[in-house]
Formats: sequence, C-alpha cells, structure tokens
Amino acid sequence: MGGGYPAALESLIGELKQLPGVGRRGAERMALALLARPAAELEALGALIGTLPRTVGRCPRCGGLSEADAVCGICGDPRRDDSLLCVVENMPQLFAVEASGHFRGRYLVLGGKISPLDSENGEGLNLRGLCDLVEAGNVREVILALSSDVEGRATAVFLAELLEKYPVRVSRPALGLPAGANLSFADAATIGAALRGRVGVQD
Amino acid sequence: MGGGYPAALESLIGELKQLPGVGRRGAERMALALLARPAAELEALGALIGTLPRTVGRCPRCGGLSEADAVCGICGDPRRDDSLLCVVENMPQLFAVEASGHFRGRYLVLGGKISPLDSENGEGLNLRGLCDLVEAGNVREVILALSSDVEGRATAVFLAELLEKYPVRVSRPALGLPAGANLSFADAATIGAALRGRVGVQD
Repeated sequence: MGGGYPAALESLIGELKQLPGVGRRGAERMALALLARPAAELEALGALIGTLPRTVGRCPRCGGLSEADAVCGICGDPRRDDSLLCVVENMPQLFAVEASGHFRGRYLVLGGKISPLDSENGEGLNLRGLCDLVEAGNVREVILALSSDVEGRATAVFLAELLEKYPVRVSRPALGLPAGANLSFADAATIGAALRGRVGVQD
Repeated sequence: MGGGYPAALESLIGELKQLPGVGRRGAERMALALLARPAAELEALGALIGTLPRTVGRCPRCGGLSEADAVCGICGDPRRDDSLLCVVENMPQLFAVEASGHFRGRYLVLGGKISPLDSENGEGLNLRGLCDLVEAGNVREVILALSSDVEGRATAVFLAELLEKYPVRVSRPALGLPAGANLSFADAATIGAALRGRVGVQD
C-alpha cells in the first residue's frame, strides 16, 4: 500500500466518489465509516447492492420503480383517478408530488428531460408509455409536472405538441411564490410569474 | 410500495443515510444513481463491501489500516526513520501528514481522541501500541500530530503524561498562519499563536 489505503478500501473510495454529490474526502469518510461497521452488516449491505437489479424493477404501466417488474403500488391502486395523468421527470419528482397529498390521479415517469442543446427528439424518454396511457382512453387531463428550468420547459413544449392529436387537456402546475416564503427572498422571474398569475383574494 | 420506493431501494437509502455527511435527499440520489449502474458493476461493488472485513485489516505495529492483517507498507519500509514516531488520530490525518512529504519516520494510529466531557482515561485508544513502540527503544522523539481542538489538546496532554516515564522528547506541530493565506482571514487564536511562535526572518 505504500502511503495509501489498502487496495480494497481504495477501490471502494473510487466507487463511492462516482456517486452524485460525493467528492474524494467525502468518499474517504464514507469508506472508513463503512469499515467500522460489523461484518454481518457489511455482508447484508453488499448483498443488497449486488441484488438491486433483481429486486428493483420498472412498472410496465407508469415506468416508475417497482418491486421486481410488477405493476407499482400506485398503478395497482383501484381508488386512484384514471382521468388525471401527471407526467414527472423521475422518481424523486413523483415522490414530491405524492407527498403533497394533493394528487390522486396516475403518474407517467418520463425518465428524464429534453436537453435543447443536445437533441430535441425525446430519445430515451418514456414517450411510448405516455401515448399508450393516453390512447387507452380514460385520460381527460395530462399535467406536465416538469421542472421550470430550460430543459423542463423544452420538454413541456415537446410533450404538448406530441399530445395535440389526442382529446386531452394539457396543463402544468402554477408558477408563483413558495408557500410561507418572504416575498423579498423571491427572484424576479418568480415574482413576475406570481404577478401575471395573480388571483382574487377570496379565491 | 404504496407511494414509496421499492423495499430494497428503501433499505439501501436507509443504509446510505447512516454514512457521514449523507442526508435523506443525498441518500435517495445516491441510491437512484446506483440503480442506474450495470448489474455486473453492482455485483462487484456489493462483493467489495461484503468482504471488507476480510480484505482490510489493522497493521499490528502502527494500528493503521493494512491489507488483511499484514504489517502496513509504512511499517514494513526499512528506509523510514525509526527514531521519529508521529502519533495521529486516524487514517485521514496519517495520509495528510504523509502527503506533505515532510515526514519520513513511523506512525502510530491512536484510533480517536479523548473527549474531556466523557472520560479522560483514553479507553479505546491504541495506547498499548504506543507504549510498545516506545519501549522497543529506537524512538527518540514522539510528535503528537493531533487536531488543535479541545479534544486534540486534551489528548496531547494525556499522552505527554503517559510518555513522561520514557526517555523521549514529546513535541507537537507548530501553530501559525496557514501557508499562502491572507493574514486578514486568520482568526484571533491563530494570529495569537503565530505571534507567540514568531521566528527570525532569516530562519
């Protein structure tokens, strides 16, 4: 090892460093913390990671994560509203909408956004799944719950054109001030959007 | 899964969240990034983590990390200076000293610091290893390269007392301004230490 970590630990640090938001120092701290764990826990964690491809799959309806390749809990829930379809970029966005408690429809996980600088053809996105769900006929409204950044807006425009041929309303969540926020901390674009979208005080 | 992640992914998020510096959101991002990896890579990473207790051990001389339980590369290097022993808290500190390129002696990894609020008896620290090395007779000077926080200073005082009975010099690295730093950014304690420890301009 000379003046370095043992080979196995160095490999682990290299692997951890590839994770999002983890730098060299963070990976070292994480690897040393793992090393301090009991052997049985490390074996269990190793098995958990090694079997991920078999234990976690994609829901064939919404494209979201599911147990193995079964239909996910949301798609399988008969009490959800089939007429509302919420399109999200990825799982964290799905969970954010779900955690709000204000949506009881179905989801479609797109698997990404369109980057206007790369290609605009939506390659790699779950467009087939979206069209299948809309063509099935129960969907009345598609809510494009995408980020309000450049890629998210480009994706929304692309999807709105794709859905033009279907008899569905296409909407997006309102832009405006975050709930509970001090107006003086909002950026100009947000204040502008909030003013343009102003509503009556009684609403 | 209801509105949550598949069970295996939720377990993984829980495990990752226990690592230092990783919160719930970071653990989610890391777990989703892992899931996107090829199955073969995940199996290799899982095996790497599962076998850590067997592939990484402690050096019986310095208490630092080593391949399995062999003597580490530094302790096994005959060109290092036996008369200088640098005491560090843990492996990251050892690598910091080593990376400076200004130390060619041996190390002793203490495995922690004394917390003055808890106990002052040094329980859990590698004191046996330290005394063994000093008693072996070749050590002329012990450098206590500990953090200059409360715990580090308490540990230095404790170790200095422990080493009083041996014919060795006990020293610590100098406190002062960081190399290349603007004096106006230094805190009062550091400037005070740098002034007290001032040296001739020609030195």
